Amino acid sequence: MQKIMIMDELGFVDFLSKNVLKAPGVITGIGDDCAQVRVGKEKFLLKSDLSIEGVHFRKKDMTFKAIGMRAVARVISDFAACGGTPKFIGISLGKSRDINTSALKDILSGINFCGRKYGFSLVGGDIARSQKLFLDVWGLGVARKFIARNTAKAGDAIFLTGPLGKRPFNKPFEPRLKEAKYLKSFKVNSMIDVSDGFIIDLYRILKMSKKGALLYEDYIPCTAGKSDFYRGEDYELIFTVDKKESRLDELKKKFYFVGEIKNKDFGYKMKAGFFLKRVKIRGYIHF
Amino acid sequence: MQKIMIMDELGFVDFLSKNVLKAPGVITGIGDDCAQVRVGKEKFLLKSDLSIEGVHFRKKDMTFKAIGMRAVARVISDFAACGGTPKFIGISLGKSRDINTSALKDILSGINFCGRKYGFSLVGGDIARSQKLFLDVWGLGVARKFIARNTAKAGDAIFLTGPLGKRPFNKPFEPRLKEAKYLKSFKVNSMIDVSDGFIIDLYRILKMSKKGALLYEDYIPCTAGKSDFYRGEDYELIFTVDKKESRLDELKKKFYFVGEIKNKDFGYKMKAGFFLKRVKIRGYIHF
Repeated sequence: MQKIMIMDELGFVDFLSKNVLKAPGVITGIGDDCAQVRVGKEKFLLKSDLSIEGVHFRKKDMTFKAIGMRAVARVISDFAACGGTPKFIGISLGKSRDINTSALKDILSGINFCGRKYGFSLVGGDIARSQKLFLDVWGLGVARKFIARNTAKAGDAIFLTGPLGKRPFNKPFEPRLKEAKYLKSFKVNSMIDVSDGFIIDLYRILKMSKKGALLYEDYIPCTAGKSDFYRGEDYELIFTVDKKESRLDELKKKFYFVGEIKNKDFGYKMKAGFFLKRVKIRGYIHF
Repeated sequence: MQKIMIMDELGFVDFLSKNVLKAPGVITGIGDDCAQVRVGKEKFLLKSDLSIEGVHFRKKDMTFKAIGMRAVARVISDFAACGGTPKFIGISLGKSRDINTSALKDILSGINFCGRKYGFSLVGGDIARSQKLFLDVWGLGVARKFIARNTAKAGDAIFLTGPLGKRPFNKPFEPRLKEAKYLKSFKVNSMIDVSDGFIIDLYRILKMSKKGALLYEDYIPCTAGKSDFYRGEDYELIFTVDKKESRLDELKKKFYFVGEIKNKDFGYKMKAGFFLKRVKIRGYIHF
């Protein structure tokens, strides 16, 4: 993994948005956790996510089953972050020399395990020779109500579904599908999953919503310490809830309230004791 | 590209079919050019296809724009082979060190060029570092009537949309979308695109339909010679037409009639002058 300036990746998203066609049927295009499209009477989520050996995982740290499970869980986490669930999953596999039939079976068993657990079907894919093992997982999901990144409102309460820094790297993990489902009856204005780090992923909401935020340092649940603010691969959900939500207390009991959305002028700040400091943006960018 | 025994790849498809979940909503799963799925009132095609540097293309042979165009055209050819058209395309890109912003722009411009030409929207994707450049193109398509590989009938006339060996390797090409559209009003029982070679791709129809075939060697249109029977990357369509089709003559004028589907017992044979010989199965397998 490579640490680089955040503007490089946000710059790339901007670049993509400017360089791709916008066409009928595309409701939400490049720049959110998933694309949202319409065909006939139905709306869907579309998503793909790469897991490359040496970039996103190392073979010596994980079983092949775990590699399959984790690659799929990353995509499911993106569906959850849009308020959706996966329906059909495909996988394109770059097969390095050491991947034999037994390893392939193990990777597939990890994907099928997730399929049974999260209710999707593996519908196809491709396989070809590659120097390094990689999995590109793509999928189609559904969401009754799509929750975007760019719709946070000033006054929203900011929540986290779970503590940061708790999930070990290089392990399969539980995407927050149940939590996303539970949130359906609340006035959630925006949502994202923590893949590159809490601070940077919340910043994506702020940037796309043209908003600022005030975080309460003591309220942010950590495992190792403040370094967890910047740790990637947590796969908890960050969501913001409208101030008119009547059941805010229920959410505060179940999840972690960590701050408030502010107007853009306010900036991105953190309250630590008596001090109000500017938030430094950094995180893991796989690019 | 690697020449291996055909049973290895067909074996892999069998293996996948046995090792994946079959679930509601999946009409056609692993083993055809595209998967066919149902969500609510709508039916779709789903497909992904890998293009890996050193396996499917070499950078020195092609511009970046051509690499983008060709990677997308391969997927569109699969949609055409199912009687469908592409609607939404995504791309996961393994970015090797030499791919700078200008190269990325060129790849995207190739994809957008195809988008305008064939009427799809680029809706998303992923990017990550990789030793070798690769593109995994995935997409959602629609087909009013899905044409499968496993539904050829004894007595069907076998056609080819164009001569073999005509398209240069490592170049963008025109997928046979128009031809697939034209065929909608005919009784086409099965269809496939020639990606690995005419002989092996027709064999896929025979194997999945549990049928045999008689080919007329002199009728098979070639450019270089008989070696074209086994040449990959032609991207013409092979289709079989029911013997009850009343406008067979129209098809014979427009396309190339090359043989007939037979019962399985007949085997896979070719008539060359007075001789009837068994067809040898070989072709390019990227695996």
